[in-house]
Amino acid sequence: MNTESRYERGLAKLREVDGQAGDRVVQSLEDIAPDFARYLIEFPFGDIYSRPGLDLKSREIAVVAALTAMGNATPQLKVHIHAALNVGVSREEIVETIMQMAVYAGFPAALNGLMAAKEVFAQ
Amino acid sequence: MNTESRYERGLAKLREVDGQAGDRVVQSLEDIAPDFARYLIEFPFGDIYSRPGLDLKSREIAVVAALTAMGNATPQLKVHIHAALNVGVSREEIVETIMQMAVYAGFPAALNGLMAAKEVFAQ
Amino acid sequence: MNTESRYERGLAKLREVDGQAGDRVVQSLEDIAPDFARYLIEFPFGDIYSRPGLDLKSREIAVVAALTAMGNATPQLKVHIHAALNVGVSREEIVETIMQMAVYAGFPAALNGLMAAKEVFAQ
Amino acid sequence: MNTESRYERGLAKLREVDGQAGDRVVQSLEDIAPDFARYLIEFPFGDIYSRPGLDLKSREIAVVAALTAMGNATPQLKVHIHAALNVGVSREEIVETIMQMAVYAGFPAALNGLMAAKEVFAQ
Amino acid sequence: MNTESRYERGLAKLREVDGQAGDRVVQSLEDIAPDFARYLIEFPFGDIYSRPGLDLKSREIAVVAALTAMGNATPQLKVHIHAALNVGVSREEIVETIMQMAVYAGFPAALNGLMAAKEVFAQ
Amino acid sequence: MNTESRYERGLAKLREVDGQAGDRVVQSLEDIAPDFARYLIEFPFGDIYSRPGLDLKSREIAVVAALTAMGNATPQLKVHIHAALNVGVSREEIVETIMQMAVYAGFPAALNGLMAAKEVFAQ
Repeated sequence: MNTESRYERGLAKLREVDGQAGDRVVQSLEDIAPDFARYLIEFPFGDIYSRPGLDLKSREIAVVAALTAMGNATPQLKVHIHAALNVGVSREEIVETIMQMAVYAGFPAALNGLMAAKEVFAQ
Repeated sequence: MNTESRYERGLAKLREVDGQAGDRVVQSLEDIAPDFARYLIEFPFGDIYSRPGLDLKSREIAVVAALTAMGNATPQLKVHIHAALNVGVSREEIVETIMQMAVYAGFPAALNGLMAAKEVFAQ
Repeated sequence: MNTESRYERGLAKLREVDGQAGDRVVQSLEDIAPDFARYLIEFPFGDIYSRPGLDLKSREIAVVAALTAMGNATPQLKVHIHAALNVGVSREEIVETIMQMAVYAGFPAALNGLMAAKEVFAQ
Repeated sequence: MNTESRYERGLAKLREVDGQAGDRVVQSLEDIAPDFARYLIEFPFGDIYSRPGLDLKSREIAVVAALTAMGNATPQLKVHIHAALNVGVSREEIVETIMQMAVYAGFPAALNGLMAAKEVFAQ
Repeated sequence: MNTESRYERGLAKLREVDGQAGDRVVQSLEDIAPDFARYLIEFPFGDIYSRPGLDLKSREIAVVAALTAMGNATPQLKVHIHAALNVGVSREEIVETIMQMAVYAGFPAALNGLMAAKEVFAQ
Repeated sequence: MNTESRYERGLAKLREVDGQAGDRVVQSLEDIAPDFARYLIEFPFGDIYSRPGLDLKSREIAVVAALTAMGNATPQLKVHIHAALNVGVSREEIVETIMQMAVYAGFPAALNGLMAAKEVFAQ
């Protein structure tokens, strides 16, 4: 499979998962690191998200959990809360995933994750 | 619902999720912080894991993702890789969850998570 | 001790420690995760802060230190700088605690902690 | 105050706080980065720990809290659990400090901190 | 070498590296922790940056990499992206350094680092 | 450029940078996640390390700095201390890079990094 098809497959997957938010991330990179936009499409979306062994709902639950726990990537957490909704994770499941992070990363991480979800749900 | 029932519900849930590994964690706390063992049973398992809004498979995928991404709690990551298997997450789904963390927390976090999975799978 | 009393004891402790800031956190959760507000009152405040083995001043010094070092929970750091003042930690002791984190978590963490303290002290 | 006296003051403070563990850290640096041993004595101990605005017990509670929460510096956490005992923090206060970190950094961080305390207390 | 000369050497080095941004950091500390401004000048700049074994370009590449990877100190990352330009690191080299962090700390860390660089380059 | 050539270019670059340690990482993945070994070769080494805008010495200084600062990936830090030596970074430059992380991530991170360097240098 050549690079062209990784890119095309990745772009389709990015749009399926992130919708317009994915396009905005790509655009934000155009004048600073356009190659990084290409890598972002090819590796995470063309390679990883396109793999068959885990459904997209589970993938987005995993990402919302991880970014909530890490607590240092709020813009990306919001993009993925939106993406989780996009691929069929319910609001309740998102809230449960974030709340559970209080156990593994502390109450501040969970609180900040819930505030991010509140913002995304309000849009 | 009184504290007794949170404890009992939590202990049953801990055993459902973690099996004997949960008992070992509780035992390891007996001579240093027995109250902490009680909190561990009551809050994470009696309160959070017992909530209906997210199935146990998704909860364990979320924890494996978060602990892989944080990268500073290997013993607990192993317990939860085992717990994920216990509640029906397949080896393939665990490996996919951990691999995906390369995107969000870097290749070293994913590599160390995969080595933890390898150890748990070998048992 | 039943859940009702954990909640009541926790709410009293939350108000003793955090004052109105605690109420604002609880309110911010009402429309997204009201159960999480309850857990926040019950476990951290009803269970942990209510324990006799460590005085509240030391508990708040511990939290200010930890949140400064982690560096990814500024809103909660501000709440706890305020809480530290509430329970009798002096401004000087808060500044010393934060400055010391330069040794354990680096100068940026300490600098950002000091800027948070400056904001809280100015209120 | 010249560098010589920072070093001398720092070395005395390091020994007061860390006892022989401090000397071992300094020795471990001799063949890789002897200047770093000097900085370690001068800045953390000659400058920070020697400041009057916060007592040594509170300083060690702050460090035990921060290193437990960060979760990526177990050898140093053990040194400072020992140091906390050295300067008069009780075992109970150490355990309370670490347990409280479950609230701010998650249960795995607190669990790993308690296991470190158990090892130090057993010595 | 006495403290006076550490301070003087550090202040000169801070200005060489950070330019006016260094002065602003020092000023921001005046009313909250003036001693910390002195330590910031003496230890990082008087001691570390003044060492001969690594050129300033490499030192700034190291800092930009570390702060991008840690992801919790954006103000300091911006100061050091500016500092990197000051000491002769090219825009391309800064962008490459940040992009590479996608491998070690994940795509969100690299994306947020690139957005910080974009802001600094636009000034 | 097709996938085959990304893989081939990446494998050559991995061997140039990491030597036999790179091969061992790839082998360790064979029975758990062979596709991840391929991604590791293709994206970090085939895409990123093969870019012209930053020399390999600077790339390895950046990685040693970041992994020291993160403090949760010791095996990978050792691989990259070895890689830094491989591409011409001197022992002194490695030690300086790690020592500097005391400023940005704290003394424990730098100490643990220096101990990792000591082990690698002793081999």
